[in-house]
Amino acid sequence: MEELTGYHGSALERLKKYSISIGDQVSINVTGKEYSGSLLPRYEHSDDKHIVVKLSSGYNIGIAISKIISISKIADGSKPRFKPPPIPEIDPSLPKVSILGTGGTIASRIDYKTGAVHPAFSAEEIYSIIPDLSRYAEIEADVVFNLASENMRSQEWSKLAESIFEKIRSGVAGVVIGHGTDTMAYTSAALSFALMGTPVPIILVGSQRSTDRPSSDAALNMRAAVILASKAEFTGVYLVMHSSMNDDSVSIHSGTKVRKNHTSRRDAFESINASPVGYVRGENIELSSNLPQRGTSKGFAPKTNFEEKVTLLKFNPGFDPTLIDTLREKGYRGLVLEGTGLGHVSSLCYQPIKKAITDGMMIGMSSQCVWGRVRMTVYSTGRELLNLGVIPLDNMLSEVALAKMMWVLGNYHDQNEAKKMMTTNLAGEIQERSLIERGSPEIRE
Amino acid sequence: MEELTGYHGSALERLKKYSISIGDQVSINVTGKEYSGSLLPRYEHSDDKHIVVKLSSGYNIGIAISKIISISKIADGSKPRFKPPPIPEIDPSLPKVSILGTGGTIASRIDYKTGAVHPAFSAEEIYSIIPDLSRYAEIEADVVFNLASENMRSQEWSKLAESIFEKIRSGVAGVVIGHGTDTMAYTSAALSFALMGTPVPIILVGSQRSTDRPSSDAALNMRAAVILASKAEFTGVYLVMHSSMNDDSVSIHSGTKVRKNHTSRRDAFESINASPVGYVRGENIELSSNLPQRGTSKGFAPKTNFEEKVTLLKFNPGFDPTLIDTLREKGYRGLVLEGTGLGHVSSLCYQPIKKAITDGMMIGMSSQCVWGRVRMTVYSTGRELLNLGVIPLDNMLSEVALAKMMWVLGNYHDQNEAKKMMTTNLAGEIQERSLIERGSPEIRE
Repeated sequence: MEELTGYHGSALERLKKYSISIGDQVSINVTGKEYSGSLLPRYEHSDDKHIVVKLSSGYNIGIAISKIISISKIADGSKPRFKPPPIPEIDPSLPKVSILGTGGTIASRIDYKTGAVHPAFSAEEIYSIIPDLSRYAEIEADVVFNLASENMRSQEWSKLAESIFEKIRSGVAGVVIGHGTDTMAYTSAALSFALMGTPVPIILVGSQRSTDRPSSDAALNMRAAVILASKAEFTGVYLVMHSSMNDDSVSIHSGTKVRKNHTSRRDAFESINASPVGYVRGENIELSSNLPQRGTSKGFAPKTNFEEKVTLLKFNPGFDPTLIDTLREKGYRGLVLEGTGLGHVSSLCYQPIKKAITDGMMIGMSSQCVWGRVRMTVYSTGRELLNLGVIPLDNMLSEVALAKMMWVLGNYHDQNEAKKMMTTNLAGEIQERSLIERGSPEIRE
Repeated sequence: MEELTGYHGSALERLKKYSISIGDQVSINVTGKEYSGSLLPRYEHSDDKHIVVKLSSGYNIGIAISKIISISKIADGSKPRFKPPPIPEIDPSLPKVSILGTGGTIASRIDYKTGAVHPAFSAEEIYSIIPDLSRYAEIEADVVFNLASENMRSQEWSKLAESIFEKIRSGVAGVVIGHGTDTMAYTSAALSFALMGTPVPIILVGSQRSTDRPSSDAALNMRAAVILASKAEFTGVYLVMHSSMNDDSVSIHSGTKVRKNHTSRRDAFESINASPVGYVRGENIELSSNLPQRGTSKGFAPKTNFEEKVTLLKFNPGFDPTLIDTLREKGYRGLVLEGTGLGHVSSLCYQPIKKAITDGMMIGMSSQCVWGRVRMTVYSTGRELLNLGVIPLDNMLSEVALAKMMWVLGNYHDQNEAKKMMTTNLAGEIQERSLIERGSPEIRE
């Protein structure tokens, strides 16, 4: 480790003056208060006005240089390395489960001494964090990539889908994907299409709180994921996360009906326009839906391409219709418009939409309401848009619609076929109308 | 009315052949089924493959020309005009309430004969639809404009705010705004800032079902709005809509904490990160919060400008960072980024963000999670963005943040002042952290 990673300017000078390095135990006097802990590295573009210390409570605090009266070094940092405990003995008759790491909080292990987050992700380390996993499965752990999930794009979806396919061919009972929660629902949708017909369950799992916090949900979620991957009788792509603020239940969400609906709560993920397909409580799997049964990998041929020139624009009262022209000029092949209400955008958008569709761009309409169903036959705005060739995306979530359009345009090159795929339910992303809804006639003027 | 408005091509030919005009009673035979009702006009860009008939049930159906075996005229349309019933006698001691029409379902009256939607909006007509309003208030009704709400922009917000201000100066007890539901929550936020400190309550109200449907919520919502505007002891900007699928309660939402969360349900609007401030049940107002009391209009000086060069982009895995450059080049002065999770976008966005901020664009970060609070100090992505000058928008809804930024940049021209306004709670849009949240230190690395 470099001596004072991330420190510069006045903070760096101050630390150098006292010959303090990263990891050293320090005592800092701040106008009457005393803090002691170990000096943490900072990230590259940090300001030069704070130093950061990990307290013995496990929390990290930033302390303003200007407020520091004195700093003294108590002890040199020993910069220890993580030593995993011995691997538990695994019953050789247990099913094999592949855990694939992609990055994110669940895959991280905090070095308590330095505060650095390690992506290291071996079976040994996973057993060391959640030892009782050895009761359920023989784990193979691999890092596919290590990205904050906001940096994940369709090329990573392809790579991940290919890696999962390989694991399935190798005969695992199920695959668990550790994923950052920010875009986990986008990825679960993408994999639902790419790996349609999977013979074994594919379980995405994340964690809203890192493993160094007492409130971490990593272990509960990961245990539920491994239980499902190893012994569930059903197959498909699912996202499993805490059901509530309590620690007693993990929800099994369909990969195409789930959304992150809270920035920080452990039960941030919710099934939309649907209930979770089931729950994991303790070691028990409780299902509330009929799900497809496991199959064989023979003949399973996933389509793992995604078209990257597809994006989403959320309509709003300051929306600039010429952004649609910009996307057309940049060669975008698909666009999900997240409209208002039943699927509307302003009439100023009609011309740019018409031009884009004429040029071969696929444009679909979802709703920013989150819940409910686009219905573009009710008001004239919707009908105008339908006439221009905008595809109504029914009750698909915007995020799911984006992933689906990338997948459809990546794998189906006939325009009519692609359009038909978008409006057909492929992986549970579109649900039938209820009888009450169907009572309404299609055209109301 | 023109003879066959909106019909063209084969549909027009077919109707001409039988000398049928809009409003005529017709009987249509479709492979074994018989439909009878009155012929409706169609909208300008309709297809030429259907004709549309209003059935005696009140529903309109489209019938494919290709499936029609025969059409016969039963009776000429008499094309009657709406005749309002006599105006009820109004007790002159009742408070005056201004109802302002802007368009949308609630302001519409369907002509049952022709199916056309009339924006006409006089006090007489409102009393004729909801006669018991005459028990609560003397109503003055004015149409400010008549737009589908997806076509509303900041210039309409200014106009509406000015009209409300005029009404307040004229001494009304309260103002009700009939608004299309699609962007009603954006407008309620905009008015919350523009009319901050209003001495009388300003109530936005909409309807998810038009008044010609048995399930219409127009009357219940409008009655609650007029009750509040006329007799509530509190002031401020509120949005009132159905509380549940039942007809017994109307929620009073703070104008800055509400969102349309369902495309079609009558209880589509929800308070986010907050409870409704109260309910109207029957004639009773039940409050669950302390609200500011009515004041006098003396010294009330609203700021009704909005900067129109402000927009919102929702981040997604197909997000094109050069769109930020495009907005900069087009002279945008403000941008709300709807990031993932705690407030993140991909690292590819850093350079375009830096350039835009250097050029003087204000960039704020909200979360697409809808619920929760942006916290950009937790992960390095957030900290990088903060260092670039991105403003964390706390627990402001994206839609509210957009309206606020348009208002701030329209009225405050000093950059530092504008930035400070964005992060200060002005109209209930930002709430204090709970004690639990405050327990977390600000910097975690």
